[in-house]
Amino acid sequence: MTQQQLTQAIRDKSSFLCIGLDVDLDKIPPHLLQEEDPIFAFNKAIIDATHHLAVAYKPNTAFYESYGTKGWQALEKTIDYLNESYPEVFTIADAKRGDIGNTSTRYAKAFFEQMGFDALTIAPYMGRDSIEPFLEFEDKFVILLALTSNPGAFDFQVGEATPNLFEQVLHTAQTYKNQQRLMYVVGATKTEYLSRVRNIVPDSFLLVPGVGAQGGNLREVCDHAMNDQVGLIINSSRGIIYASGGADFAQAAAAEAQKLQAQMKEILSNRWG
Amino acid sequence: MTQQQLTQAIRDKSSFLCIGLDVDLDKIPPHLLQEEDPIFAFNKAIIDATHHLAVAYKPNTAFYESYGTKGWQALEKTIDYLNESYPEVFTIADAKRGDIGNTSTRYAKAFFEQMGFDALTIAPYMGRDSIEPFLEFEDKFVILLALTSNPGAFDFQVGEATPNLFEQVLHTAQTYKNQQRLMYVVGATKTEYLSRVRNIVPDSFLLVPGVGAQGGNLREVCDHAMNDQVGLIINSSRGIIYASGGADFAQAAAAEAQKLQAQMKEILSNRWG
Repeated sequence: MTQQQLTQAIRDKSSFLCIGLDVDLDKIPPHLLQEEDPIFAFNKAIIDATHHLAVAYKPNTAFYESYGTKGWQALEKTIDYLNESYPEVFTIADAKRGDIGNTSTRYAKAFFEQMGFDALTIAPYMGRDSIEPFLEFEDKFVILLALTSNPGAFDFQVGEATPNLFEQVLHTAQTYKNQQRLMYVVGATKTEYLSRVRNIVPDSFLLVPGVGAQGGNLREVCDHAMNDQVGLIINSSRGIIYASGGADFAQAAAAEAQKLQAQMKEILSNRWG
Repeated sequence: MTQQQLTQAIRDKSSFLCIGLDVDLDKIPPHLLQEEDPIFAFNKAIIDATHHLAVAYKPNTAFYESYGTKGWQALEKTIDYLNESYPEVFTIADAKRGDIGNTSTRYAKAFFEQMGFDALTIAPYMGRDSIEPFLEFEDKFVILLALTSNPGAFDFQVGEATPNLFEQVLHTAQTYKNQQRLMYVVGATKTEYLSRVRNIVPDSFLLVPGVGAQGGNLREVCDHAMNDQVGLIINSSRGIIYASGGADFAQAAAAEAQKLQAQMKEILSNRWG
């Protein structure tokens, strides 16, 4: 998918919502456990109920890996289903990978070619040659961790000894080959930093977790970080997918997604008229 | 496995060698491709031929993930085989994971409980709450990336703007709960930094990649970073497992492993008498 297609999808759906598919068998409605593949059954129902409200879906690979081969199969079925049924959707593998050159190429092939994701989250610690192999794939995107939404972000990203590491990551990443294929993870729990991020990367898309379960405020995020192409994908996971633990889980998820989408629609119409 | 058991295995085998199982179907002997599971067949042959020379095995998960579900199955079969046939071996999943709390717990369960690895490599960028969940597992270890052996290490770990980030990572990690379960990845291509690392973490085990294919020198590494408990695990991947592309691949791998083990034996006997 191109960035233009993503922006078009945002206009078409009046939404820049991403739904995080962090599937936990202990949290999904119990009746699904009788299905042959409960994880995929859950995802399919959520996707079918929300695809008109969201522009992106983001499975976090940890949840799938924790179920071994079966989890991995469920992840493959989920991305196949998204690509076949809703090709306009932007798909993000939240894998937070990062390794040296030849290994990065392996990961890139796994997620971009074997599975056909549009984007992959990557940790920056290992630097240029751990990131550039991912940037070689046309119409694919790397979403680099810049400022995450967890308390541990203050250890190093905005650390006592390294108060500007997240800004250094943004500056340095601008020098990478094919840097136009970079997007960035920027947590919504620290809106005071969003403007600093936007100053360094005015044109890039930001993937913003932490709206919802982690406490970020949508309007505040948009005030600080929206650009002329919107430039934002706002993720919500648990707040949507676990809105109900009963038989109505998919409708309940759609209702929660609808609330966020309605706010987004209003923000977009104020901006684009 | 406990750290004492690891040290005992090092004494028993006169070796602190780790063999990296980075299996690439384009590089393994072609006759194996007719096997039902070529990746596992390759690993099993390498392990059987080298287990008396190595104290640890380290599959890099990227290589397995790049083959989808089949790769994941081969990884599961490999760790099962190691645990059943050679329980004295220290097993490392080189996964370079790291995510927020509830997701880290998922990863920890996947690698420590489902698959039964002894240790897992973790990237530090997301800080405390992305690492501590892994440290809760008794007799399991986190091997934290401190100073990697790739050129990109100079972007942030020893960056222009953050020249001491790798030392900050070491200092901060000492404050984490259950930090006694931490080991560190320290690249062998920068021996000038090994002493600085050893000053901060005198008692910790260091996993040192980059001896062999990446150019590090074994004796120099030991001079700078060995401690009274040895405190080193030296990894070699391609130099051993791809020593021959023919039917003799396992014997050739054993011969390469033997060369490193012989050097290690000499170093250990000079040290321990």
